[in-house]
Amino acid sequence: MIYLDNSATTSPYPEVLESFRKVSESYYGNPSSIHQFGGEAEKLLHKATKQAANLLKVDSSELIFTSGGTESNNLAIKGIALQHQNRGRHIITTQIEHPSVLEACQALESHGFDVTYLSVDAEGKIDMEQLKNEIRDDTILISVMHVNNELGTIQPIKQIADIVIKHPKLFFHVDHVQGLGKISLDFTHPGIHLCSMSSHKIHGLKGTGLLYIQSGTTLSPLLHGGGQQSSTRPGTENLAGIVAMVKAMRLTFEKQKHGYGHLIKLSDIIRNLLQKDDRIMINTPRDGAPHILNISVPKFKPEVVIHALGKKNIFISTKSACSSKHSDESAVLAACGLGMERTHYGLRISLSYQNTEEEVRQFCKEFKEVLDELNEVMR
Amino acid sequence: MIYLDNSATTSPYPEVLESFRKVSESYYGNPSSIHQFGGEAEKLLHKATKQAANLLKVDSSELIFTSGGTESNNLAIKGIALQHQNRGRHIITTQIEHPSVLEACQALESHGFDVTYLSVDAEGKIDMEQLKNEIRDDTILISVMHVNNELGTIQPIKQIADIVIKHPKLFFHVDHVQGLGKISLDFTHPGIHLCSMSSHKIHGLKGTGLLYIQSGTTLSPLLHGGGQQSSTRPGTENLAGIVAMVKAMRLTFEKQKHGYGHLIKLSDIIRNLLQKDDRIMINTPRDGAPHILNISVPKFKPEVVIHALGKKNIFISTKSACSSKHSDESAVLAACGLGMERTHYGLRISLSYQNTEEEVRQFCKEFKEVLDELNEVMR
Ligand SMILES: Cc1ncc(COP(=O)(O)O)c(C=O)c1O
Ligand SMILES: Cc1ncc(COP(=O)(O)O)c(C=O)c1O
Repeated sequence: MIYLDNSATTSPYPEVLESFRKVSESYYGNPSSIHQFGGEAEKLLHKATKQAANLLKVDSSELIFTSGGTESNNLAIKGIALQHQNRGRHIITTQIEHPSVLEACQALESHGFDVTYLSVDAEGKIDMEQLKNEIRDDTILISVMHVNNELGTIQPIKQIADIVIKHPKLFFHVDHVQGLGKISLDFTHPGIHLCSMSSHKIHGLKGTGLLYIQSGTTLSPLLHGGGQQSSTRPGTENLAGIVAMVKAMRLTFEKQKHGYGHLIKLSDIIRNLLQKDDRIMINTPRDGAPHILNISVPKFKPEVVIHALGKKNIFISTKSACSSKHSDESAVLAACGLGMERTHYGLRISLSYQNTEEEVRQFCKEFKEVLDELNEVMR
Repeated sequence: MIYLDNSATTSPYPEVLESFRKVSESYYGNPSSIHQFGGEAEKLLHKATKQAANLLKVDSSELIFTSGGTESNNLAIKGIALQHQNRGRHIITTQIEHPSVLEACQALESHGFDVTYLSVDAEGKIDMEQLKNEIRDDTILISVMHVNNELGTIQPIKQIADIVIKHPKLFFHVDHVQGLGKISLDFTHPGIHLCSMSSHKIHGLKGTGLLYIQSGTTLSPLLHGGGQQSSTRPGTENLAGIVAMVKAMRLTFEKQKHGYGHLIKLSDIIRNLLQKDDRIMINTPRDGAPHILNISVPKFKPEVVIHALGKKNIFISTKSACSSKHSDESAVLAACGLGMERTHYGLRISLSYQNTEEEVRQFCKEFKEVLDELNEVMR
């Protein structure tokens, strides 16, 4: 199998699965139980949280474990909106956020919030001047993703954070789900108040995510209950999932050191091989994240291409996984102002540190063959 | 180890862990990905959901997987309240619900909802007449737990459901977290609209829960995003956790057939052995669930007793795990109108099908020894 859909989800590292098993087997006590067996689980929970905090260079008290990126995004956005609505009810985000950000914002609109969706240029980048101009007295939150999940475009998070610190009323949330372990983010920047991460995108397990909440930032919880995680996110902690996520982070960060160049190499190989083919248009900007390459092959129905590749045990995707079953058009490519021949025919190749040069070369070869075959059929 | 804190959490069945591992390893594709590898994950998701539906005798479309009991309770209560607030803003629950129900209700109170907390008698039972009298024109939701997590008291769910069907405006939510696999509940009763379950209480894994939502019942989601689970609970599905939960349910239901009598036997042994000791008072009613036995040992600080037992590798608890670190008094026992000597000195022994006669006999013996030893120290 050649798996090139790593932005949808990744294969768990064997070490991650092994940690999960060990913790589930030997530390199944409830961290809230006051007996020694619960105490051991609680100690492990603290240790894992501390390890995550060290990896991200933040304080343990600033990390909240959730059920995934979707929950982290919802908790950040709705949590800030509900907690600080007395100060203002205006939110700024972009037109190309993940559905869990866009739809959380839309839900707030139906509760009387006012949301500005920043437009993006042909490469998916926001305009910093537009962002500055949209900040109003009643703006309480800016939510901008680090790396776009369809296009790989990297937004200027540091520049936004630099502006945010000049507005003491303003919170800044970053959806870092696609960036984690690939494109570094400086968590110590005082202008970043909230940051979402997800375990299954970095070879961890589904069902675990993280939300960084800068010390001093308060938000209204989505769940109420037993007081776990300082009552910001109650519910019996998924300790095994948490330990597994921290392990996945550690392993991914280790690989990032050398692997970043590897990703650029793979990405360049695919770009160079594909752009020779004049049926193929490349949408991802040159300075985008190296693990995501978005292309369009006009007239070739994406589902058909994907299915044909799938038969050869090669997996790529249209758009993002979660919006892929809805409309034919990519809302992200449309927001970039690209034409029909691109927006309806988008494909995404997404890499992980595990992919090899051989795999991507073979993919390019088979991809062209698939186009040739389909060309025959379509005649 | 003699583990008698099964209402806090349980040890995962080896088969459950094995299923989790297999699915994580071989079906890690995103069920929303349109390629064949995603399709296999999607098929498995449907199969697992169908299996859960068969086990509970409901329809697949009526089941939503969540991150646990806390989320299920919050989704049910807030989801109904927000969706149907135009019809009325009154909710009825009891004084002895789990914190995830009580605090969800309190959160709604701060948003202008009116909540009636039914009182309970000395055995923790609600009064059906009181319940009937509290139903008003603007009552939209009744939330009553099946089995109380501290006391084991079983509420008359069927009788409540019989009343609910006479009020077409009314929804009924049951917190079945402690009942699942121990005390059967008839999901086909038309008066039960919502029902919460949690995997880690039935030898499944932490981080997965279920919410049954009767066909035709609509609620406002807590999370917004990628459209998964009919948009009622979006986010990449924790497929391995879901398969593991369904396996835990199947195994638990199989054990329930013969195991129920086993639990009664164990419970009777403990009752009989402990009630001979006049230092010990038994709080759980005779007709309570057989897997929970709540006792009070006046003057013996629960933490000290638990710690002393823990040194002998025997684990029981005070109150419920998640409220055990807060106040000294059990809010549940206090709501039963029991005196200080009971409410401050409560202990909970909670069983699973895995516990043996030998274990509970040894527990009783060691428990008395611990009391004797502490008596010496306290002199
Ligand atoms: C940018 C981005 N944000 C959020 C999410 C949601 O994360 P999860 O699948 O863990 O809910 C995803 C992936 O689906 C994503 O790509
Ligand atoms: C009756 C009851 N409801 C809800 C919960 C919460 O479930 P979870 O721990 O899965 O969040 C628990 C257990 O903590 C419980 O005992």
